[in-house]
Amino acid sequence: MRTIDWVDGEIHLIDQTRLPDELVVLRVDTLDALVDAIARLAVRGAPALGVAGAMGVALLAERPADPGAVRAGAARLRAARPTAVNLAWGVDRALARLPEGPVAVLAEALAVRDEDIAACAAMAVRGADLVTELTGRDRVTVMTICNTGALAAVERGTALGVAGELHARDQLAEVLVLETRPLLQGARLTAWELDRMGAPHRLLVDSAAAFTLSRGLADVVLIGADRITANGDTANKVGSLALALAARHAGVPFLVVAPESTVDLATPDGRGIEVEERSAGEVTAFRGVPVAPVGTRTLNLAFDVTPAGLVTAIVTDRRVVRLDQGGTPADPVPA
Amino acid sequence: MRTIDWVDGEIHLIDQTRLPDELVVLRVDTLDALVDAIARLAVRGAPALGVAGAMGVALLAERPADPGAVRAGAARLRAARPTAVNLAWGVDRALARLPEGPVAVLAEALAVRDEDIAACAAMAVRGADLVTELTGRDRVTVMTICNTGALAAVERGTALGVAGELHARDQLAEVLVLETRPLLQGARLTAWELDRMGAPHRLLVDSAAAFTLSRGLADVVLIGADRITANGDTANKVGSLALALAARHAGVPFLVVAPESTVDLATPDGRGIEVEERSAGEVTAFRGVPVAPVGTRTLNLAFDVTPAGLVTAIVTDRRVVRLDQGGTPADPVPA
Repeated sequence: MRTIDWVDGEIHLIDQTRLPDELVVLRVDTLDALVDAIARLAVRGAPALGVAGAMGVALLAERPADPGAVRAGAARLRAARPTAVNLAWGVDRALARLPEGPVAVLAEALAVRDEDIAACAAMAVRGADLVTELTGRDRVTVMTICNTGALAAVERGTALGVAGELHARDQLAEVLVLETRPLLQGARLTAWELDRMGAPHRLLVDSAAAFTLSRGLADVVLIGADRITANGDTANKVGSLALALAARHAGVPFLVVAPESTVDLATPDGRGIEVEERSAGEVTAFRGVPVAPVGTRTLNLAFDVTPAGLVTAIVTDRRVVRLDQGGTPADPVPA
Repeated sequence: MRTIDWVDGEIHLIDQTRLPDELVVLRVDTLDALVDAIARLAVRGAPALGVAGAMGVALLAERPADPGAVRAGAARLRAARPTAVNLAWGVDRALARLPEGPVAVLAEALAVRDEDIAACAAMAVRGADLVTELTGRDRVTVMTICNTGALAAVERGTALGVAGELHARDQLAEVLVLETRPLLQGARLTAWELDRMGAPHRLLVDSAAAFTLSRGLADVVLIGADRITANGDTANKVGSLALALAARHAGVPFLVVAPESTVDLATPDGRGIEVEERSAGEVTAFRGVPVAPVGTRTLNLAFDVTPAGLVTAIVTDRRVVRLDQGGTPADPVPA
């Protein structure tokens, strides 16, 4: 089952806000419905957002409309989440084919989907090899944050795809899953995926990562990325910087696993990344249950930026960038 | 209103599991009820636990029973929470007066209470002075974790008492409150106390602390402690180590505020601290609402240990120990 796909002129996507309680597939056939699904995180994860962006343009292009209206719709879609570069990238790829007509736009969107599937497969193999090399262990305990599995892409995923590959190789001891406040993608989505995979895992509150690492209870940290700048600074789910500091303190390798499309060479470093601030309700209540006094104000930064100096390596579908050895994403990509 | 007090032969305490929804005072007149209140965190916070321990022995001593039964009950009480040194310390102080009879035991328990009130007042003044000295600012933004306010003591509290003193001096810009998963003492209790104080504050998920500090949005971190070892290693609510790493990364002073009774010179360093592992249900549900697939296993370490090297200073009721200048808790306490 794919997280997002194109079926009979509609986008079908798993509604991730309903997991782990129920597996519901949303059928999206309007721009409004897609923007809403993206904004409320029914679909999320950088690679999946790239596919959603491209398919959203295909949706616009197949309806009778003048190109100006398609472009206006695409601009709205592009702005639905500011931090993930993939969304804008997917929109732009599909939009570039608009002069060729709707069939070409759809073909491009399907190519984005198929390339993501291939990219995740390549990252899984390359990442698992690197984990074995860096840890020197036959069986590894992985710590991860947020959801970077199949639900964040079309299939398999990025960082969690590496854990899945290790599991398939019988080299995975356990995944320590950070719950990932405020929206609990770790608890709701990653634990659910690992359960379906039959991979051993335990759930931790985010703030327990540092101590758990300091006690030697994990061998490697694997995270995804929403945007990687030219120098290797990485925007990802809030908590990633804390995790990078904890990994450094514990001497544990910290790997960022993301498709090449996440690399944003136009942004020199992390200072140029816009970080989305989301609503107070995500922090002060959960599923309608208040957890703070009524009216409590919040500072709800949804992402953070990890400086390149705290990252051991970036694994993409096309290469491993060893930041710890002086590499940067601006280095040439192997042919 | 005191968090815990002795009224007409009973212990009265605010049931902190009911906050912020309702303010309920529990009347405790049996050992079972007290152990239960401690285990389920109806009363928590190192100083309050010290008072609860001493008053629990007074409760045992005032009922007709042989000294052996009192000592057996005291041993049970002592073990209700393993990490906080104050609980055992309060029990032992009251128990030492047992040969003198129940009136002496009660007098000791009331002395523990009164000394805590005085200690919190002293820490507030000393801590606020130190914050002003270290930050060099007229108005400071404080970041804190867990609840270290009046609810953690009898009155005023420890780290949050310092923020309260800064507020009283009109030197508090804002408190950035970490929600403190899994039991949300920050969201439920600290936000509630600050609201009642009229002190400006915003709530953050725990994992946002590192990025928020790295962006220069807080001037000082203030935390409490459950146990401070001879070298200055500090056990406190899980997340404190992550916060210390984040403060160090951002170059922000990291202050531990705790009464002298928290200092445990018998334990040389943090490796000797037993860290309580609590039940899975605290992580897999959020105030009763399930957040993870049924049956998900957890690693729920309730505390962590911050090495002395990450602590700028420890503020007690009797002194400031400047760890950043080579001081240690084993240094002589000023007369």
